[in-house]
Amino acid sequence: MKRILVTGARGFVGRQITPLLAARGYDVHAVTSQTPPRDATCTWHHANLLQERQRETLVTSIGADALLHLAWAATPPHYWTDPENLRWLSATLDLVRSFSSRGGTRVVGAGTCAEYDWTAGHCSEGSTPLHSGSLYGTSKAACGTVLESYGRHTGLSVAWARLFFLFGPYDAPSRLVPSLATALASGQRACCRTGDHVRDFIHVADAAAALVALLESDVTGAVNIASGSPMRIADVARAVAESARRPDLLSVEPGPPQDALVTADISRLRCEVGWHPPLDTIGRIDETVRWTLAQ
Amino acid sequence: MKRILVTGARGFVGRQITPLLAARGYDVHAVTSQTPPRDATCTWHHANLLQERQRETLVTSIGADALLHLAWAATPPHYWTDPENLRWLSATLDLVRSFSSRGGTRVVGAGTCAEYDWTAGHCSEGSTPLHSGSLYGTSKAACGTVLESYGRHTGLSVAWARLFFLFGPYDAPSRLVPSLATALASGQRACCRTGDHVRDFIHVADAAAALVALLESDVTGAVNIASGSPMRIADVARAVAESARRPDLLSVEPGPPQDALVTADISRLRCEVGWHPPLDTIGRIDETVRWTLAQ
Repeated sequence: MKRILVTGARGFVGRQITPLLAARGYDVHAVTSQTPPRDATCTWHHANLLQERQRETLVTSIGADALLHLAWAATPPHYWTDPENLRWLSATLDLVRSFSSRGGTRVVGAGTCAEYDWTAGHCSEGSTPLHSGSLYGTSKAACGTVLESYGRHTGLSVAWARLFFLFGPYDAPSRLVPSLATALASGQRACCRTGDHVRDFIHVADAAAALVALLESDVTGAVNIASGSPMRIADVARAVAESARRPDLLSVEPGPPQDALVTADISRLRCEVGWHPPLDTIGRIDETVRWTLAQ
Repeated sequence: MKRILVTGARGFVGRQITPLLAARGYDVHAVTSQTPPRDATCTWHHANLLQERQRETLVTSIGADALLHLAWAATPPHYWTDPENLRWLSATLDLVRSFSSRGGTRVVGAGTCAEYDWTAGHCSEGSTPLHSGSLYGTSKAACGTVLESYGRHTGLSVAWARLFFLFGPYDAPSRLVPSLATALASGQRACCRTGDHVRDFIHVADAAAALVALLESDVTGAVNIASGSPMRIADVARAVAESARRPDLLSVEPGPPQDALVTADISRLRCEVGWHPPLDTIGRIDETVRWTLAQ
């Protein structure tokens, strides 16, 4: 595996991944629908993957061995119900078929913890049912299960990375850490309304490192990408407030009983991929708050 | 609902459906990738639905209220593992999006009992897990769950018909009823090797009538299309042998323990759609054998 095609390379996860891959000596071909950056460590391509001809041209001209596919409809909160999820599902299936037919051998796709039935609480790849209330989670689950089956029937090596609750630089401003940090630092009161809910949070740079380890492994099928250290949302909010030096402005309330617990079994990630998450989530939150407030 | 677009209209199920719809007074627009027949009861269209431009032209020019989508990769036994399943999944999602954006309001898609986890035995839409060993079943399940979610989020009325074990005129020659009938009638010995397995068989004309009832209803989500009267495969084989007048040439053996039972809960079909299957499966087998031997 030498040449890697990375889609969504300017996205939240993608921008963490390309430097890691380049530093490991791969010939990285990075695709974005935005303006490509000035960055000589990768070969940049500008393309709209929803357009069949652009997909074909890209895959044919690059001839990559591996595909790390991160691109998808991703504007919060719209992506949960966006009909564009169907276009991304179709485009992804076509992209993988095309990649495989041109000699590609390894695919890692970006799934999500939203594929799982959250009434289960703790989510294991092999046993927790997939049942999402959202079009986003349903479309991602469909994509993962079909690509896994396609891989089994064609010999293409396919892994499906179910990403849990990411935070870090370039997160959308409406998300938990940046929205709280910005409000509190500007002197506004803020209330965390699902304080007793528990989630598996992982810093986006750690998730990127886990994705690289998964890509380099020969593990196939669904793999949770998470820290394995669940936190109460109240504790995340309090860590943000400490970093923003305004714990006095934060209030915390309990949330509704549904979806109270969404945690990850990371035994596949640890034992099969061999990747172990760093343990300092509070330090990672502090870094993220400092980065957010410096923008 | 006046104008109906039927895809796969020259297929095994499709050729039973268009006369029923025409007789009920609908303006039927029938699509086939084969040569359209001389048949003035429908407006026939020749198109390859795997081609984006042909799909778009078709949907835009017809402007149908309802879509009955039967087309898919369907050549036995190849379709179980055919990578074309991915193309049909993509094409189906695009077709439905396009149909909906042009004012279409009602969709019925063709699913399959192969979407279910057959270790469950008796298959209920609401409770039996979807888990297929085949690319065909996985792709159909993905299609149904995504379209159902798309319908919930956009207001499009979508039903997904999970067809059980069909038999009847124009079945593929390799399938149970025609292959046994042909062999026995030509004086060859034949062995039924899964005699103790139990399946829900339904004649294709009855399945077509159920699909029309489903299309005319406002029932959404997955609906099993089956007889509700499971039969041992040995009993089907014996009925074929009786009709072919060569029961002396038939032997029956028990099958492997896996997949011994695949039966259908048809309470949604009966109580919500209001369609009741005819009870004379043996008579339907006899009709089919006579039709097969007359070709």
